[in-house]
Amino acid sequence: MHIPEITQTLLEAKDEKGLSFEDLAKLVKRNEVWVASVIYRQASASLEEAKILVDALEVAPYYASELIKYPIKGSDSIVPTDPFIYRFYEIVQVYGLPLKDIVQEKFGDGIMSAIDFTLNVEKEEDPKGDRVKIVMSGKFLPYKKW
Amino acid sequence: MHIPEITQTLLEAKDEKGLSFEDLAKLVKRNEVWVASVIYRQASASLEEAKILVDALEVAPYYASELIKYPIKGSDSIVPTDPFIYRFYEIVQVYGLPLKDIVQEKFGDGIMSAIDFTLNVEKEEDPKGDRVKIVMSGKFLPYKKW
Amino acid sequence: MHIPEITQTLLEAKDEKGLSFEDLAKLVKRNEVWVASVIYRQASASLEEAKILVDALEVAPYYASELIKYPIKGSDSIVPTDPFIYRFYEIVQVYGLPLKDIVQEKFGDGIMSAIDFTLNVEKEEDPKGDRVKIVMSGKFLPYKKW
Amino acid sequence: MHIPEITQTLLEAKDEKGLSFEDLAKLVKRNEVWVASVIYRQASASLEEAKILVDALEVAPYYASELIKYPIKGSDSIVPTDPFIYRFYEIVQVYGLPLKDIVQEKFGDGIMSAIDFTLNVEKEEDPKGDRVKIVMSGKFLPYKKW
Amino acid sequence: MHIPEITQTLLEAKDEKGLSFEDLAKLVKRNEVWVASVIYRQASASLEEAKILVDALEVAPYYASELIKYPIKGSDSIVPTDPFIYRFYEIVQVYGLPLKDIVQEKFGDGIMSAIDFTLNVEKEEDPKGDRVKIVMSGKFLPYKKW
Amino acid sequence: MHIPEITQTLLEAKDEKGLSFEDLAKLVKRNEVWVASVIYRQASASLEEAKILVDALEVAPYYASELIKYPIKGSDSIVPTDPFIYRFYEIVQVYGLPLKDIVQEKFGDGIMSAIDFTLNVEKEEDPKGDRVKIVMSGKFLPYKKW
Amino acid sequence: MHIPEITQTLLEAKDEKGLSFEDLAKLVKRNEVWVASVIYRQASASLEEAKILVDALEVAPYYASELIKYPIKGSDSIVPTDPFIYRFYEIVQVYGLPLKDIVQEKFGDGIMSAIDFTLNVEKEEDPKGDRVKIVMSGKFLPYKKW
Amino acid sequence: MHIPEITQTLLEAKDEKGLSFEDLAKLVKRNEVWVASVIYRQASASLEEAKILVDALEVAPYYASELIKYPIKGSDSIVPTDPFIYRFYEIVQVYGLPLKDIVQEKFGDGIMSAIDFTLNVEKEEDPKGDRVKIVMSGKFLPYKKW
Amino acid sequence: MHIPEITQTLLEAKDEKGLSFEDLAKLVKRNEVWVASVIYRQASASLEEAKILVDALEVAPYYASELIKYPIKGSDSIVPTDPFIYRFYEIVQVYGLPLKDIVQEKFGDGIMSAIDFTLNVEKEEDPKGDRVKIVMSGKFLPYKKW
Amino acid sequence: MHIPEITQTLLEAKDEKGLSFEDLAKLVKRNEVWVASVIYRQASASLEEAKILVDALEVAPYYASELIKYPIKGSDSIVPTDPFIYRFYEIVQVYGLPLKDIVQEKFGDGIMSAIDFTLNVEKEEDPKGDRVKIVMSGKFLPYKKW
Repeated sequence: MHIPEITQTLLEAKDEKGLSFEDLAKLVKRNEVWVASVIYRQASASLEEAKILVDALEVAPYYASELIKYPIKGSDSIVPTDPFIYRFYEIVQVYGLPLKDIVQEKFGDGIMSAIDFTLNVEKEEDPKGDRVKIVMSGKFLPYKKW
Repeated sequence: MHIPEITQTLLEAKDEKGLSFEDLAKLVKRNEVWVASVIYRQASASLEEAKILVDALEVAPYYASELIKYPIKGSDSIVPTDPFIYRFYEIVQVYGLPLKDIVQEKFGDGIMSAIDFTLNVEKEEDPKGDRVKIVMSGKFLPYKKW
Repeated sequence: MHIPEITQTLLEAKDEKGLSFEDLAKLVKRNEVWVASVIYRQASASLEEAKILVDALEVAPYYASELIKYPIKGSDSIVPTDPFIYRFYEIVQVYGLPLKDIVQEKFGDGIMSAIDFTLNVEKEEDPKGDRVKIVMSGKFLPYKKW
Repeated sequence: MHIPEITQTLLEAKDEKGLSFEDLAKLVKRNEVWVASVIYRQASASLEEAKILVDALEVAPYYASELIKYPIKGSDSIVPTDPFIYRFYEIVQVYGLPLKDIVQEKFGDGIMSAIDFTLNVEKEEDPKGDRVKIVMSGKFLPYKKW
Repeated sequence: MHIPEITQTLLEAKDEKGLSFEDLAKLVKRNEVWVASVIYRQASASLEEAKILVDALEVAPYYASELIKYPIKGSDSIVPTDPFIYRFYEIVQVYGLPLKDIVQEKFGDGIMSAIDFTLNVEKEEDPKGDRVKIVMSGKFLPYKKW
Repeated sequence: MHIPEITQTLLEAKDEKGLSFEDLAKLVKRNEVWVASVIYRQASASLEEAKILVDALEVAPYYASELIKYPIKGSDSIVPTDPFIYRFYEIVQVYGLPLKDIVQEKFGDGIMSAIDFTLNVEKEEDPKGDRVKIVMSGKFLPYKKW
Repeated sequence: MHIPEITQTLLEAKDEKGLSFEDLAKLVKRNEVWVASVIYRQASASLEEAKILVDALEVAPYYASELIKYPIKGSDSIVPTDPFIYRFYEIVQVYGLPLKDIVQEKFGDGIMSAIDFTLNVEKEEDPKGDRVKIVMSGKFLPYKKW
Repeated sequence: MHIPEITQTLLEAKDEKGLSFEDLAKLVKRNEVWVASVIYRQASASLEEAKILVDALEVAPYYASELIKYPIKGSDSIVPTDPFIYRFYEIVQVYGLPLKDIVQEKFGDGIMSAIDFTLNVEKEEDPKGDRVKIVMSGKFLPYKKW
Repeated sequence: MHIPEITQTLLEAKDEKGLSFEDLAKLVKRNEVWVASVIYRQASASLEEAKILVDALEVAPYYASELIKYPIKGSDSIVPTDPFIYRFYEIVQVYGLPLKDIVQEKFGDGIMSAIDFTLNVEKEEDPKGDRVKIVMSGKFLPYKKW
Repeated sequence: MHIPEITQTLLEAKDEKGLSFEDLAKLVKRNEVWVASVIYRQASASLEEAKILVDALEVAPYYASELIKYPIKGSDSIVPTDPFIYRFYEIVQVYGLPLKDIVQEKFGDGIMSAIDFTLNVEKEEDPKGDRVKIVMSGKFLPYKKW
């Protein structure tokens, strides 16, 4: 899985400063997942947001002009090998068809947008072991007839 | 994408009876996504649950003994072609690495379980277009050292 | 490339009746590409539309209840081998990145929807050889920030 | 997805000059999609066109002699992961067979050329959200019998 | 590699009658490769040609109406395993780029059409071992600029 | 598609000198396709031939000792994406089985050699558009029984 | 891995009769590997040979006319999963390049034919464990220059 | 196909010295195929053997410490594109199942080891064209029951 | 993942009789994993063992003659989608290279046999959650030099 | 198979020092497989453990801060080509389904964790040839119903 050079530089700066994605998110008043996506070059920031990130990470101002570009998105490996990421692929394999049926029963023929879409992560404390809570919210897009 | 014969039979019976997954879920006192997963042979029911489903769908009792089996899970196509399911694959492609970083920043090295895991679907009404809300909750599993 | 049985039956009936997709489209007051997509089980009709199609094709009424289902979409072969279909794959290979840049220069970071989307085919007569004109119109969906 | 070095250089120059593809297209009196294709090394310019582009972008004259070469075309990833480009792949998956039938019903056995072919992009303003309009026009090539 | 049922039937009939493709080709006044392509459902015959073939092979008249259909072309296996067919794949692997350069040096940027295309096979007798001579002739299609 | 460095160097030298493959072919008294194959490192020259090529291209004598090596042949991409080369892949997909039957009907069970093999390109002038004529001649190799 | 019906029938007959491939090979005066290849439909017998095999196996005479056909050869799975067959794939992976260099050092640029080719199996008794000895003999085919 | 740097260096030294693999093999008193495998980093030498090779090739002594390492074996391309190597892949495709049956008829359920394994190459002079003789000898390993 | 018919029949009989693999293993005095492998047609039983299994499962005696055959082994899907099986694939992905280094440090260049190999499963009771213990024991096979 | 630079550096240092993984494991009081996994960047150490490793290997202190990072895990090649690693892939292919059935018969529907997981290697001395013993212990995770 290829990590662009800019991402490596920004993550190292983040490590050195001891900043979390949550810290960066507060500075730009956005969600931490979105901020991480900008740094991984999967989303594009406004110039103002990019400058705040670059300032906080104390990297060369040149990087701000990179973070506003519209990236070519997606990773190259067809099936992810990293166990963390694979589990999400597995969820698509196992629950893909049931989800399709449930959503389309509620909404009709269409999809959940992955563009008009938000993704949040929360930590659920639990005595039997903490849980990762992931909340996706995407606009339902019904198929247009023409 | 191969749909097992039992799934086709149960879905047709469900259509004919005009039952929703939500109706079936109430009968077995479980979430509708889990019930759909049982019917798509991605999850296994208890005998009691299986009988309730088979009764409600008015299919041959033989199917109850099938629904309690532990299925071979997952679909065959490596990259899903159905647009609804593909969007989830796309989310893994685009947000996989950012998610990994966010979760591991909060929890340490490990994964979100896809086994000790729940998946809920809600409809969010919105004047600009209703939204699909998907909530995943999986136990965090830290890597064991030995 | 797998053609579902229902599609084969309806196409044979269409051949026998000597009906064109344009004829069927006029009956349901929709575009011929959309009608072909319903028959190829890539789109879902309303019950009323389905009945008109089934009547026109003089096939068993049972098929109407199939045409309203929300199909699992997409073909199985990753790279199409049929020369007609391959040319469209080639257009994506050759013009994909230029198109992305042009559209994003005009609209910002986002995509052309393939769901809120129409697709028309026209014949352009030309003394040097007739031309196929294909018009796609999809809503622009800007990436949401959150 | 590999972007050749020359493309990166020209795109950066274009960014710095604040030129759009439309601006460049006017200078060479061609369509902006074609100009973007030349810069992405998917199409070849005449020497005159190449010089105009190189002058406008104020890059080394050496690049003109590169832009007239006949490139090895196509991108490397079999299924595109970028969501913008994927939507076109999805359109081929979903509408490929219906399109084939519609076009061949109108024209006979053959294909739409992807070589004697033009591709235009327009912005359709729409109160419910602007739309991307893409017009493809390709010569119909009937299969020769021999 | 999947052989359609109609092809199997016609090939068996051809075997039983002791007819060669050359015999069939003379009856329809076409080249034997084209006739074999019709039987393998890679090309479409006129109704008249189809009837001649069906008569000669003494199979059910129903097959004539199949042979005039516009087939979905191409085989499913990405890399052919049959040694005879693989050699042609190997020629593309080994001589593909040299051929591209030679042809484009002679003709400019473009392709040899595989649609406005003929393919002949001849036997060259040779004391050191007979040779297979294959002659391809395809219209050169220059890339259109727009 | 990876082009070795030596090939890039030789092609640039050829461009600068304004030499065609035909010019080079005359110097070594061989066919231009074979010469292009040597330069693309798909075939090996004799030392004498290599020296003539290196002299004509005015590159470092060192290259002659490279051109006589026996190369690892073939390109890396399983399905070629370049439209020129893809058309030959398409010909294998569409006409592979018919060709096999025609040749084996004439010669028996065996293959056309891709090693004891020649490949010529000619330009056929034609008022309806010039044609590319490709002539392949390969020794027929019958399967040995033992 | 698909085994054709005829192969299954002949292997079952062979099992029932208690015949080895060596027994069959003696009857047709050929090597046992070649006979197994005929039965697996990877090689074609003469009519006389086919009749001897069919008689020995006491199956319907119809099978003789099948065994003389020129089969579409090769198995479908790209990487064999059966451990016995995989070991040969592994040998190609591990020793492919060394073999190429050794053979070409001895013979020049070319290949070992897999058509004018024989393959024998012998059992080498050895106190440390018997050994399988496989002897391949293929005509060397030098690359033709033209 | 990736050739490690050490292999390239050693092969160039071997070329310059005019040594054959057979020459090197005599020096270390091993078979030439094994020596080539060491140089291609598919097998590991003893320190003594490595020093003899490094001395003979007159390369830096450092290489000896590399040749004794246990390499990660195998090439990367799933289906080899080089015609020489492909022929062996083809032999696995065509003769894999017949070989399995023959060997298992003689030895029982098990495999031929590719580890306790030798591979020799001989030149068979033949007036009709010299032949490549390859002799493999691998220990038969019966499946253990437990 | 394809399950052979015989396996399905035997598993259903086993379910109906309420027999565990452990029960069957005791009858044939073998390990339960091996017995399951015989039933899944990945291992071959002796005739005596096969008869005991067939008797215990009360299926047609014909099945005994099938269970002694030497099966074509391995499943077809390259990357397993079932989460249970995938975890083992993941272990190979994550721990493959470390394992290779550890074993080869202890044993030298070679492999752990997967043929002279046993595989046991045990349940480890644990208050924090029971554990699956899997013990593999394979003969170390050193690479032969020749 | 890509080996990260840090891994290469640490392995070379380990070689030079003549340290085994067992030696390193004793220093950090962990299992040698886990230590190898840290060095291959498949597991993350604590800062204290990282410092001990870096000190023992006498490499730059900078490496300690790398070894505590949470790596992107897994290798890139879908099917491993190295024979040592392939044997484990083969075990998954051959014994995957039997294992699944055995474990689920003992534990119910669920998986063996590859995260709450340990992996030990032992050498079993055996007069017939030493054996590699691999012991995996993973927590059983039952599928949650919801």
